[in-house]
Amino acid sequence: MAAAGLRIAAMNAPAHATPKPPELAELRALVSADLARVNQLILEQGRSDITLINDLAAHIIAAGGKRLRPSLTIAAAKLCGYEGERHVRLAACVEFIHTATLLHDDVVDASDLRRGTATANAVWGNKSSVLVGDFLLSRSFQLMVADGSLDALKILSDASAVISAGEVHQLMVSHDLNITRAVYEEVISAKTAALFAAACELGAVVAGNPEWREPLRTYGHALGMAFQLVDDALDYQANVADLGKAIGDDFRDGKVTLPVIIAYAAASADEKKFWEGALEAGVALSPENLTRAKELLIKHNAFEQTLNVAHQFADAACKAIATFPNSPAKAAMLEAAEFSVSRGY
Amino acid sequence: MAAAGLRIAAMNAPAHATPKPPELAELRALVSADLARVNQLILEQGRSDITLINDLAAHIIAAGGKRLRPSLTIAAAKLCGYEGERHVRLAACVEFIHTATLLHDDVVDASDLRRGTATANAVWGNKSSVLVGDFLLSRSFQLMVADGSLDALKILSDASAVISAGEVHQLMVSHDLNITRAVYEEVISAKTAALFAAACELGAVVAGNPEWREPLRTYGHALGMAFQLVDDALDYQANVADLGKAIGDDFRDGKVTLPVIIAYAAASADEKKFWEGALEAGVALSPENLTRAKELLIKHNAFEQTLNVAHQFADAACKAIATFPNSPAKAAMLEAAEFSVSRGY
Repeated sequence: MAAAGLRIAAMNAPAHATPKPPELAELRALVSADLARVNQLILEQGRSDITLINDLAAHIIAAGGKRLRPSLTIAAAKLCGYEGERHVRLAACVEFIHTATLLHDDVVDASDLRRGTATANAVWGNKSSVLVGDFLLSRSFQLMVADGSLDALKILSDASAVISAGEVHQLMVSHDLNITRAVYEEVISAKTAALFAAACELGAVVAGNPEWREPLRTYGHALGMAFQLVDDALDYQANVADLGKAIGDDFRDGKVTLPVIIAYAAASADEKKFWEGALEAGVALSPENLTRAKELLIKHNAFEQTLNVAHQFADAACKAIATFPNSPAKAAMLEAAEFSVSRGY
Repeated sequence: MAAAGLRIAAMNAPAHATPKPPELAELRALVSADLARVNQLILEQGRSDITLINDLAAHIIAAGGKRLRPSLTIAAAKLCGYEGERHVRLAACVEFIHTATLLHDDVVDASDLRRGTATANAVWGNKSSVLVGDFLLSRSFQLMVADGSLDALKILSDASAVISAGEVHQLMVSHDLNITRAVYEEVISAKTAALFAAACELGAVVAGNPEWREPLRTYGHALGMAFQLVDDALDYQANVADLGKAIGDDFRDGKVTLPVIIAYAAASADEKKFWEGALEAGVALSPENLTRAKELLIKHNAFEQTLNVAHQFADAACKAIATFPNSPAKAAMLEAAEFSVSRGY
């Protein structure tokens, strides 16, 4: 198992180590029929008379990957016993917001370009990424309006505002090695967990179970935190093909994530100097720096500690839905929590 | 009157020339109290715990200029005899969408940067412009949800989708001298007139007069068309301080606007070559090229013809609200139509 050496689960976290799960098999089985309709709706609604929108939207939608967020909306609706149609449309809204965020994340500054950053937008350019992202975000709100629930509109407009504020916050604290774990958690709560929380809460909204909104929101938020924490660890070591992005993206962008916060706090004077030099704005990513960063992260058990925090959130996610009766939906959502911390991609 | 030589009204359109109006005096008087509350709300809602959002939002909001769109929402509500409070919040929504569009318009591609384009985002960078724009757009939807009208949400989410599709369309046809006037009108209808139409239609929505939605929408759309046509003519000749942007912006960006379409259609072989060379992607703006472009636009009566089209739209705007009884609101809206074509900025 040479490849497994790259993976967190096989690294240095024996306390929580679980056998690699069957890659969300239960969640995928649960949502597959509905998710196919979500994908269909996404393709239909991403279409436009403007060919550039079609091209870019098709590209980003096809590259969209796991469709984890809309799957959670479907699963949460099923957990609440919902048997109608509305969750399909709202799941598409969630994915559109996520897709718009990805497109806007692709936008680069001149300084990034000078540092040789290559992103998906290299093909279409910044302006296309921005404008097509705006289009998809607007489409999302149009779909919500067609659904007609002010509760859903509130949940997703709130999430959208929180996400963009979180992305700005992340931009502000990038390159800042003195941020605390609390600030880091604020950032990932906003930029990632807020949409997971909203995606799950929508399940209770369509089912007409207001009392289940809070537990589902809590589940989604905790799951999103676990997911992002693991993402931030994988950034330094995942298999490129699995993760679908380049290793060291965060490092190159100067994002100070929890593994770095941990290693920097425990660093010697020399090591501190290394981090300060390597994460400074405008420094190009060198393979040597990335190798050294990984060594220091391993030396100070930064991956293990990050994974421990992720496990706490995954546990909180499971606890949030503990009182729901057993069902395939519940099993799938517990599996998702386990997957969030054991995944290698 | 040396400065007036720069202005369209004083140029070469005697058929429709009107004395310069008192700069929207009636509209300003009508809306000033409510607009002060809109501005207050915009400042409050543009605030965030994230200082970068405050800085950039304050900058762009302060630079926001005429507040024409929210003023139209207020005027349209008054035209319908509305005496409540909701128009203030929805007017703020309209301005937030406009502001987000401005911020996203500031985003530049690497190719633009190489050509030396300087925009407001030079201070904060592309990513900040995108993310703060996203934040303001999300805030707009949060405010609509707080208002609670699905009609208003539909009007503004539709407008938002149309605007972004229109901006993508504009991007696609830039540098293309073979676009027709019809394509040009499609672009400005989407990128500009759609929000004017929505701003006015909201007046009938808050007043609870569904039968007035269509005439107000028609008024707003026609006004927006007139406004943009004049904007595109002024781009070649306005007084910089008045217009608040650099002369020749469209020319430099390769935007093929109606004046250019007209002059290109009437151009000699030599002149066609000039336009093709000057508007090609990647060509830097030179003062000589801008001077030559202006000469050709004047030679072929392109400004006069563009202004004639603008006058037709302004007339259509007036006609759309002709059946409303006389009132200060109606007088102000007729004045706005006149202003749209006689303004020098």
